[in-house]
Amino acid sequence: MSDPDFPCPDDLVAFAERLADAAGVVAMRHFRTAVTVDEKPDLTPVTIADRQAEAEMRRLIEQRYPEHGVIGEEAGRQGEASRYVWVLDPIDGTRRFISGHPGFGTLIALLEDGRPLLGVISMPALGERWVGARGHATLFKNAAGVAEARVRPCPSLDKATLFATSPYMFIGPARPAFERVREAAKTPLFGGECHAYGLLASGYVDLVIEADMGLYDYLAQVPVIEGAGGIMTDWQGLPLGLGSGDQVLAAGDSACHKEALRLLSGEP
Amino acid sequence: MSDPDFPCPDDLVAFAERLADAAGVVAMRHFRTAVTVDEKPDLTPVTIADRQAEAEMRRLIEQRYPEHGVIGEEAGRQGEASRYVWVLDPIDGTRRFISGHPGFGTLIALLEDGRPLLGVISMPALGERWVGARGHATLFKNAAGVAEARVRPCPSLDKATLFATSPYMFIGPARPAFERVREAAKTPLFGGECHAYGLLASGYVDLVIEADMGLYDYLAQVPVIEGAGGIMTDWQGLPLGLGSGDQVLAAGDSACHKEALRLLSGEP
Repeated sequence: MSDPDFPCPDDLVAFAERLADAAGVVAMRHFRTAVTVDEKPDLTPVTIADRQAEAEMRRLIEQRYPEHGVIGEEAGRQGEASRYVWVLDPIDGTRRFISGHPGFGTLIALLEDGRPLLGVISMPALGERWVGARGHATLFKNAAGVAEARVRPCPSLDKATLFATSPYMFIGPARPAFERVREAAKTPLFGGECHAYGLLASGYVDLVIEADMGLYDYLAQVPVIEGAGGIMTDWQGLPLGLGSGDQVLAAGDSACHKEALRLLSGEP
Repeated sequence: MSDPDFPCPDDLVAFAERLADAAGVVAMRHFRTAVTVDEKPDLTPVTIADRQAEAEMRRLIEQRYPEHGVIGEEAGRQGEASRYVWVLDPIDGTRRFISGHPGFGTLIALLEDGRPLLGVISMPALGERWVGARGHATLFKNAAGVAEARVRPCPSLDKATLFATSPYMFIGPARPAFERVREAAKTPLFGGECHAYGLLASGYVDLVIEADMGLYDYLAQVPVIEGAGGIMTDWQGLPLGLGSGDQVLAAGDSACHKEALRLLSGEP
């Protein structure tokens, strides 16, 4: 079993960044070009950029760590009973990518025994990246250099800046649950995609609440946020991993997290 | 009176870009620093960056064109009966700016006899800018160079990518009106701020619908979109100018514009 006190080895972190570099090259080659948009069975869009970026990351993993499993948004699951499993979203925010908007990213998580060990949020069109790994401080990297990312205090929800990609991602009872938090927050903002979690890790945003997500949409963010001093769970307050559902709640301050959990649950 | 066939003089266009440069320098000096956030009487936030960027643009206008009027988001109206009036939003998307998100912009319009003559959408943190002026093709400028921006065809709403900053900007009857268009559109996206209008001018987005806007939030976009072959009006289909209300509709394709207008009006 995994030892929660054992830091993530540096070579795994460096390799995860190589994957992010490779995916970014593919994404930027197709960004703002006339890519064909196909529809997946779930009606979400996919492009050659998504497929090629994931294929390239899978090729690199197979070459270097053939014993590791891979779960990718586009090409499915393989070896997921392995001790180490990579969870890949080549282009998070495909709709934004297709619309020429630079707010898309690549998400890379490595799970150890089903729990996130390291995560990368890479924004190739923005030139920004967050790297989080167990036992390491989260790093923020851009053209200006490398800095430690650190969440900010936010003692109560009425002072919080809250991000969600869209209010329409909350379906059925999730919608009124989200509305309770949105109404209590000071500044609700939309359209953040995975970038919002990075901004939270860097202390500019206090809460991210999302739903209708796949594993590849959120597992990479967990080590980024935990390594910056924040907290990220599902809507029941449980840790996130291979068996988690589709709802997540990230906060910089545990007081804010607790208050949001309470409102999401509908408790008075 | 203005002659709608007379192109906007180049020196005015160059000066508008100088204003955008100056505002961008101020904004970037304060971006992702610990700026104090004040609340205006309308409860929207303002920072020293908004105030300084507008003051700097006003200083430059006063120096070069003392006979021109100025309407600014932060420092009010001055000489608005002048033939030429500048309409300035130093930081459009102040909430995003405060949250460390690069999707904020500077909006600069010059009105001639109350109608937009030129407009600049400048995204200093993204390094992107659109410049539109009567009688000129709209230009898109970034680190890679300068290119003409051109809208794309979109013959019907069910193929359209639609942007709005937030669904909560639609208040009262504007909300169901917006919902009718959102439900008919193929891909509704949020959080675009002024950047979405630039993406529309460049042919990546088909519709932008917004409400609860000030003049400084939308007049700069009109020449940008018209010079790229698009159309931008209020929700009644009327041209935008000094006397317009708070609702705007921009489209790349007039067929899409017409369909959206019909749905906004509630006609069957």
